[in-house]
Amino acid sequence: MAEAFDAVDVIHAKRDKRELTPEQIAWTIDAYTRGVIAEEQMSALAMAIYLNGMNREEIALWTKAMIASGERMSFDALSKTTTDKHSTGGVGDKITLPLAPLVASFGVAVPQLSGRGLGHTGGTLDKLESIPGWRANLTNDEMMRQLESVGAVVCAAGSGLAPADKKLYALRDVTGTVNCIPLIASSIMSKKIAEGTASLVLDVKTGAGAFMEDEQMARELARTMVDLGTDAGVNTVALLTDMSVPLGRAVGNAIEVEESVEVLAGGGPADVVELTVALATEMLAAAGLKDVDVDAALKDGRAMDTWKAMIRAQGGDPEAALPVAKHSHEIIADSDGCVTGLDAMKVGVAGWRLGAGRSRPGEAVQFGAGVRLHKTVGDRVAKGEVLATLLTDTEDRFARSLEAIDGAWKLENVDEFERGSLVLDRLA
Amino acid sequence: MAEAFDAVDVIHAKRDKRELTPEQIAWTIDAYTRGVIAEEQMSALAMAIYLNGMNREEIALWTKAMIASGERMSFDALSKTTTDKHSTGGVGDKITLPLAPLVASFGVAVPQLSGRGLGHTGGTLDKLESIPGWRANLTNDEMMRQLESVGAVVCAAGSGLAPADKKLYALRDVTGTVNCIPLIASSIMSKKIAEGTASLVLDVKTGAGAFMEDEQMARELARTMVDLGTDAGVNTVALLTDMSVPLGRAVGNAIEVEESVEVLAGGGPADVVELTVALATEMLAAAGLKDVDVDAALKDGRAMDTWKAMIRAQGGDPEAALPVAKHSHEIIADSDGCVTGLDAMKVGVAGWRLGAGRSRPGEAVQFGAGVRLHKTVGDRVAKGEVLATLLTDTEDRFARSLEAIDGAWKLENVDEFERGSLVLDRLA
Repeated sequence: MAEAFDAVDVIHAKRDKRELTPEQIAWTIDAYTRGVIAEEQMSALAMAIYLNGMNREEIALWTKAMIASGERMSFDALSKTTTDKHSTGGVGDKITLPLAPLVASFGVAVPQLSGRGLGHTGGTLDKLESIPGWRANLTNDEMMRQLESVGAVVCAAGSGLAPADKKLYALRDVTGTVNCIPLIASSIMSKKIAEGTASLVLDVKTGAGAFMEDEQMARELARTMVDLGTDAGVNTVALLTDMSVPLGRAVGNAIEVEESVEVLAGGGPADVVELTVALATEMLAAAGLKDVDVDAALKDGRAMDTWKAMIRAQGGDPEAALPVAKHSHEIIADSDGCVTGLDAMKVGVAGWRLGAGRSRPGEAVQFGAGVRLHKTVGDRVAKGEVLATLLTDTEDRFARSLEAIDGAWKLENVDEFERGSLVLDRLA
Repeated sequence: MAEAFDAVDVIHAKRDKRELTPEQIAWTIDAYTRGVIAEEQMSALAMAIYLNGMNREEIALWTKAMIASGERMSFDALSKTTTDKHSTGGVGDKITLPLAPLVASFGVAVPQLSGRGLGHTGGTLDKLESIPGWRANLTNDEMMRQLESVGAVVCAAGSGLAPADKKLYALRDVTGTVNCIPLIASSIMSKKIAEGTASLVLDVKTGAGAFMEDEQMARELARTMVDLGTDAGVNTVALLTDMSVPLGRAVGNAIEVEESVEVLAGGGPADVVELTVALATEMLAAAGLKDVDVDAALKDGRAMDTWKAMIRAQGGDPEAALPVAKHSHEIIADSDGCVTGLDAMKVGVAGWRLGAGRSRPGEAVQFGAGVRLHKTVGDRVAKGEVLATLLTDTEDRFARSLEAIDGAWKLENVDEFERGSLVLDRLA
């Protein structure tokens, strides 16, 4: 069959800073999915897009074409409205764990199709898989039944959603074209729109531990995604949040589940609670529930009940003991002071090197591995106190992990130091 | 074995407008040749180079690395000095045919390692292969013996020269990264320097029928190549020449050989003679022969004798009848006037579609096919006169060829029109 366009002409157009036409974009994604556009051609096009950009119209069409490359889900058969959340990823970001049951405890359906970790950021599925018996893969029917009965589901996305995105993401990863707003925005939003949620709250992170370190770029990414969602009929809101410091005091898998359970029990670190409550409030508002008392659901056990039901529905035992690392190593403070900074990237890389994360898709992670932070921003430290405990099943990983975390703590001679709000801005 | 660099880091560097280090460049070309850098990674890097450029130092290192990817030839064993010419390609560009024997007739060795045509520009080997018996492939020994005895050789380049360039050129062809000065310059010059010529004259073409339509870009390409050659110890000169109008009155294979023989016999179209003499004068000067009477060698038969010896040495019969196309079609003028323009690109594409050129490497060409121009720039035309004859073995090719050549002639109501010199500038 004759093709409507030639790949080289499309590459030339973007290379020469011309706007791609709707027909060119639809053909490009379709032809790439069919293998008519070769990987090396898409890679040249991705670099041209990286360097010359795409305007709002082009990004919207690119996203639509990615959605059209696969199947679309529908939650229309449910008796409840659906609301979804997506985080651009950070260090110690376990927020989905307390958030999904918390929001679902208000009678809203929360389908969290999640991924696994790669590099210094963890994956929600990896964390939950540290719970004995819990399984990430559900059939569509199982997911629908659980949304109806429990309300919250965290499971692996099926391979039928936006297959073009899967192919393109793997290519971008090896060709230096990951950090590109039009391609990130269309990648995230194509999957979210294809999932068929009625509303969506985006947690767009910025700072040392985020993919978008620069706040201005993170803001532009948030704006682009909110526009894409809104244009596609999804009620979309974004919070721009600070990711310069790890979230909470646990960075790993099992230890993050533990910390999430503390939050669901009404306790837990203040920053994790703050972000969980802020996102829950936005999700409920987007689903039409305004002025609800989110804190109360954490204090009175409603969120915890939903958590337990959600874990049990997916085969897990919420009361079972979690895996514990075989080896631990303490990092000791060599001076006094108040912690005024803690580099999220250094902590993230340390946890990854301890075995909590993976370097290539498909690698196993160590459920017990990670970093327990005894001192974080705002804490006073005395020389000789423990700053953190490194955890791993493989003792020889300590050396490279210590290298990574070296210099992560900033101690200053001040009486106290207070972090500002995690939420830097809200875009709707 | 551990690699010195990571391909993604090299891509990031050029993507972010940083200068590549000598070590990065050497590793990149070597790793690409070894297959450690994948095609899709090199393609992203080529696009980043296309859009962000390389400075003089980077281009020189890139060229060196390409030379180092293969073998180097040496003409040191010859009793004569060597001089070489490279043209960036045009329509009706048969100049190598009269030029090589003309220069060799002065006792200089002219090794012309040539290529085949692709797209609208013809290839020197394709043209010569229309001579019955002539063969393009010589062993290194055969080439050396012929340079010593005849002086002129036109043959196919061995596959051992700059293999990285061969691989990269094929990739650039399908990824929209052909027209990039750093990559063109290093591609041409890596092969020419690896060939080991003592001096080199570049014919850098600009105008409608050239790869570099824009004169400013052609000038920059010429400057870059002269610098690369000079830095590598090759006595290098470039002529910037006009390619807006086809060279001569024949565009094809056998018909261009015919026209070249006219020039060698002391006749032929003025523009072909002008460029042949200009390039011969430069080549001889670069080889140390100044103030020689080039015209005389065309008039008195010395150049023709060398031509015949060169063709015979490679198995050809210089007296044999050349292939003739089976079908012809005349284009008739529908008005009077003087030809003030003739679009080289339109004529080139028409010849290609008639079968004189190929669309993919390896395709056969029709030796008799092409376009005979009865009226070119400066000629007076009366309504009803023949502007051109289209030639092909495949009658159904006329229609698409006529489409391509439509509007190529510009007729104006002036008494006369004189073209300026073909040589626009000289860079050394």
